[in-house]
Amino acid sequence: MTDNHRAPTGPAGPAPAVLAQNQYGKAETRVVRITRDGATHHLKDLNVSVALSGEMAEVHHHGRNTNVLPTDTVKNTVYAFAKEHGIASAEGFGLLLARHFVTTQEPIHRARVRIEEYAWDRIEAPAPRPAGTPEPRHSFVRRGQETRVTQITYDGARWEVVSGLTGLVVLNSTHSEFWGYTKDPYTTLPEAYDRILATEVSARWRFHWSDDAEPAPAWDTSWTRTRDHALQAFAGTYSLSLQQTLYAMGARIIEHRPEIAEVRLSLPNKHHFLVDLEPFGLDNDNEVYRVADRPYGLIEATVVRDGVEPRIPVDLSHP
Amino acid sequence: MTDNHRAPTGPAGPAPAVLAQNQYGKAETRVVRITRDGATHHLKDLNVSVALSGEMAEVHHHGRNTNVLPTDTVKNTVYAFAKEHGIASAEGFGLLLARHFVTTQEPIHRARVRIEEYAWDRIEAPAPRPAGTPEPRHSFVRRGQETRVTQITYDGARWEVVSGLTGLVVLNSTHSEFWGYTKDPYTTLPEAYDRILATEVSARWRFHWSDDAEPAPAWDTSWTRTRDHALQAFAGTYSLSLQQTLYAMGARIIEHRPEIAEVRLSLPNKHHFLVDLEPFGLDNDNEVYRVADRPYGLIEATVVRDGVEPRIPVDLSHP
Amino acid sequence: MTDNHRAPTGPAGPAPAVLAQNQYGKAETRVVRITRDGATHHLKDLNVSVALSGEMAEVHHHGRNTNVLPTDTVKNTVYAFAKEHGIASAEGFGLLLARHFVTTQEPIHRARVRIEEYAWDRIEAPAPRPAGTPEPRHSFVRRGQETRVTQITYDGARWEVVSGLTGLVVLNSTHSEFWGYTKDPYTTLPEAYDRILATEVSARWRFHWSDDAEPAPAWDTSWTRTRDHALQAFAGTYSLSLQQTLYAMGARIIEHRPEIAEVRLSLPNKHHFLVDLEPFGLDNDNEVYRVADRPYGLIEATVVRDGVEPRIPVDLSHP
Amino acid sequence: MTDNHRAPTGPAGPAPAVLAQNQYGKAETRVVRITRDGATHHLKDLNVSVALSGEMAEVHHHGRNTNVLPTDTVKNTVYAFAKEHGIASAEGFGLLLARHFVTTQEPIHRARVRIEEYAWDRIEAPAPRPAGTPEPRHSFVRRGQETRVTQITYDGARWEVVSGLTGLVVLNSTHSEFWGYTKDPYTTLPEAYDRILATEVSARWRFHWSDDAEPAPAWDTSWTRTRDHALQAFAGTYSLSLQQTLYAMGARIIEHRPEIAEVRLSLPNKHHFLVDLEPFGLDNDNEVYRVADRPYGLIEATVVRDGVEPRIPVDLSHP
Repeated sequence: MTDNHRAPTGPAGPAPAVLAQNQYGKAETRVVRITRDGATHHLKDLNVSVALSGEMAEVHHHGRNTNVLPTDTVKNTVYAFAKEHGIASAEGFGLLLARHFVTTQEPIHRARVRIEEYAWDRIEAPAPRPAGTPEPRHSFVRRGQETRVTQITYDGARWEVVSGLTGLVVLNSTHSEFWGYTKDPYTTLPEAYDRILATEVSARWRFHWSDDAEPAPAWDTSWTRTRDHALQAFAGTYSLSLQQTLYAMGARIIEHRPEIAEVRLSLPNKHHFLVDLEPFGLDNDNEVYRVADRPYGLIEATVVRDGVEPRIPVDLSHP
Repeated sequence: MTDNHRAPTGPAGPAPAVLAQNQYGKAETRVVRITRDGATHHLKDLNVSVALSGEMAEVHHHGRNTNVLPTDTVKNTVYAFAKEHGIASAEGFGLLLARHFVTTQEPIHRARVRIEEYAWDRIEAPAPRPAGTPEPRHSFVRRGQETRVTQITYDGARWEVVSGLTGLVVLNSTHSEFWGYTKDPYTTLPEAYDRILATEVSARWRFHWSDDAEPAPAWDTSWTRTRDHALQAFAGTYSLSLQQTLYAMGARIIEHRPEIAEVRLSLPNKHHFLVDLEPFGLDNDNEVYRVADRPYGLIEATVVRDGVEPRIPVDLSHP
Repeated sequence: MTDNHRAPTGPAGPAPAVLAQNQYGKAETRVVRITRDGATHHLKDLNVSVALSGEMAEVHHHGRNTNVLPTDTVKNTVYAFAKEHGIASAEGFGLLLARHFVTTQEPIHRARVRIEEYAWDRIEAPAPRPAGTPEPRHSFVRRGQETRVTQITYDGARWEVVSGLTGLVVLNSTHSEFWGYTKDPYTTLPEAYDRILATEVSARWRFHWSDDAEPAPAWDTSWTRTRDHALQAFAGTYSLSLQQTLYAMGARIIEHRPEIAEVRLSLPNKHHFLVDLEPFGLDNDNEVYRVADRPYGLIEATVVRDGVEPRIPVDLSHP
Repeated sequence: MTDNHRAPTGPAGPAPAVLAQNQYGKAETRVVRITRDGATHHLKDLNVSVALSGEMAEVHHHGRNTNVLPTDTVKNTVYAFAKEHGIASAEGFGLLLARHFVTTQEPIHRARVRIEEYAWDRIEAPAPRPAGTPEPRHSFVRRGQETRVTQITYDGARWEVVSGLTGLVVLNSTHSEFWGYTKDPYTTLPEAYDRILATEVSARWRFHWSDDAEPAPAWDTSWTRTRDHALQAFAGTYSLSLQQTLYAMGARIIEHRPEIAEVRLSLPNKHHFLVDLEPFGLDNDNEVYRVADRPYGLIEATVVRDGVEPRIPVDLSHP
């Protein structure tokens, strides 16, 4: 643990390497917060990832940890804040955490908090209870694979909040066509005038809000309504291409949710191919489909409010 | 493709190796079946795996495929049957397939069909339509990670039907204790008088029905009711151990569903540990929990109707 | 925590439900054991799952935990044994654990220990060191997705040891044909006289050894040689069906490894289909293949030594 | 398929929504290319994802597919090019594809090709053969979970090539410390003077090369040497923080590989915690560790050559 334990890590000559963008933190802290309101319990289930940036040259060059708040401390802070402040919403909880790290740690100039939230429904079941006591409501069933996500970024002055969802699988069994496309020498696809359109929606929407002086959006209401607009646009669009459906989803959100500046959608085309049943003397009038895993079409676009610059990254693999 | 293409595959001397149990077939054929009732569409989404057994010594010993129905044909049959017979229920579809292979292929003596079914809900959304036409109902959203499963086995004379579910995640935020257990020199666990109990239910239940001469159960109703009894027993049991909860779930099914002979449950204990907040000057009155991934307790048991021999295998990794 | 906290869990009338097979324990305890031999370190990396059976009626029926050794204690025991006894081999470590639970816990009559072992190779790199000191050898790179597995079962009198592997992906780019199979009305597959044969080997082999009075096999040598025989048989068989290749793999192991009584193999046919390039004016002389995910053929069989009864379960989803 | 089938997709009033960044293409086309050199076969195994951008407003706004080359055609092109041009290296293959789409499709202004390559080793085994014929060499075993990746971007004028790897798991069992860090009120972590350091390396490096007029790097040699430098730096660094190790890995690559302009590393800290064995009367002298899944520290940084602007995105979840 003394210096002579350490080998020199750089060459003797000129060092052409320079540290550029960097960040560190604790990823995937899984926290469940129970709030008891008499016999009625409420549950929040989050997966929290924090990334911090700032004056970190010393630790990269020399292993001097003076400016490094341990990632273990970041984890502890998530748990302690869940107790001290509760979890009103994923966004609200992320704001508290991001502000804390930037304002209490001098060397940290930027914090980014990503949260996945898992939804639970109540099990409406008679739990055992003595006569005259209130009905217990503490049983839950996890809703599904769809996940609500948010990402909060704070640099000490401005906020950026990007919320969204992943894993929302939807399907129209008709009202989808695909024809009139470019044909080149490698094109063999037949045109389709009635097909299944299915996708697993990954969406992110950025809020206008960026300033503490302005009132923040109602995060939970906004999320629920925005998700509903995406579903309505998917179901209600007679589609001539998945691009058209994507744009309709993004545009509907922009048109109906004034708090949102920008929407990015990533829609894998979950191909359902009509099975050729002719060899067995059967027709297939849009009845039997095989579901393909790979490859898949992947359609991605950002729809912004007029006059807004897009800021959500092109890849949506994370919140 | 002639015999001299083949190298000898066995030794010259005495061969001590003997072929024992064997099966083959096509796994994970993904089929979606749409049924149109005017503007209202219905959707079935299955993953079908077929395993066949019979007179297969020749192909194992000499590569002679005379008795081998290609697995590609098995796949084709799944698709063709989806067209010809429709899919009334996963169980009914499995019965048709199993009977087909055993009764049409002389060398095949036993068929086992495993099916996973994915649930979809309707999106209640206004799809575009000309005035005076019926409301279109062809938009769906996949329900979640929970999967309905069934396994049909047929040997030409008797049926065995085992249905169930996987991926049903449930949680009680109170009414769970764990104390009074054995202490040995390696025991450090403190007793718990109020804890979270959470698990991901994997369940299989075997039906009495095995004879074509008897009327088969109403598969869909049976499945829905059985799942509900499992949920009710989980929520309604004041639990002193996960074993007790497991038994309550199995027993309730046996008591209420006369068509079921046997239930096997596999319940991983999804540990939620109270976070120690004392170092930060905070108490934690059953409010903040960390969720652990591994290791996890795993509780498994079969509950049978009195007088019935258990037949569901101990491992539930497949249907 | 007193009895009047508990609701009655059974009905008043006759109880038709009976507890049958059951087991419990701690799954997936991940332990790494380092042994230092001067500057040379050795590493064992295991994932250990323990399942215990015995007198467990009380806990299932009434939540009385008197006979229950907590799964947390099981986890502690794995760690403590890694320290006290070291880890000579996965099999040897499993034997110690299984014996411990059965012989020290009166109510436990049977223990089953499953272990996955992850392989690491040394990084042959110059670590920094003062002159005159030995070369440090403490850097490792994980080998791959292939996993060594073992399952030890002990009932207080006899042992059963089943070892094997999962995730071994192999491919022959020729010397594979498939023709001469059954054609039924659903058959469309063309015969193949030169195809790719690829599979992901899952194998389990059971040892004769079952009695403490007999010397145990050399576990590590046996595993390495057995894996090599499987590879050699796969590569060296001119294959007319995957069944033939499977049997050749099992038979070769039985013929060369006298300590092994029985081999079960599960071989998914990882289909590589020749792409039709004719539409682009190109031939495809066994050059360009698309790799399919699902569905896949699945070939499974047990090969036993003459006179031996098969005991490995048909499903190999676990060790 | 006529216009009156289509519902209007936009509102009558002012449309505040504007299409911004967008791309589409076929993801995860899995292609295996075999090249026969007499009895010696060579194998390339790729997963290819193509994303195209250009004049795509019409299809998003109106579903007019005139400018849309179907993603099915993109897939066909991957297969046809594997035949016509072979696959010399992942990078070389990606260059051909990207150039093809941009130069043959007027409306497409930019192509991005991402490739994952899976490594296979030969099985050195005697395949059957007639006397006097060459030794067959057509059997392979897949190497592991580590994957080589590359991303080629072309806009018709300049190239950007970013290569790298994912899934490379490495571990030092000593020569790692962590102390001297910031302590705040949420800090409980004890300092460590001898710990395990383990990570799963995800790395991307960008080449200087961007101009067809310049000779391209030797892609395969470059990749192999760069990977080796990363391993050597990991093994050879006496580490006081994972940041220090990360920087040493990046700097070593910059110093030794002049063709590389920039390196980004994403290193999850795969925590190995010393197990507390004191309750069992045992010490633990850096011998027994438990391996944690979540949460984990995550350290990410870019190291650039002096004077170079970083261009690799901060998130490395894709190539």
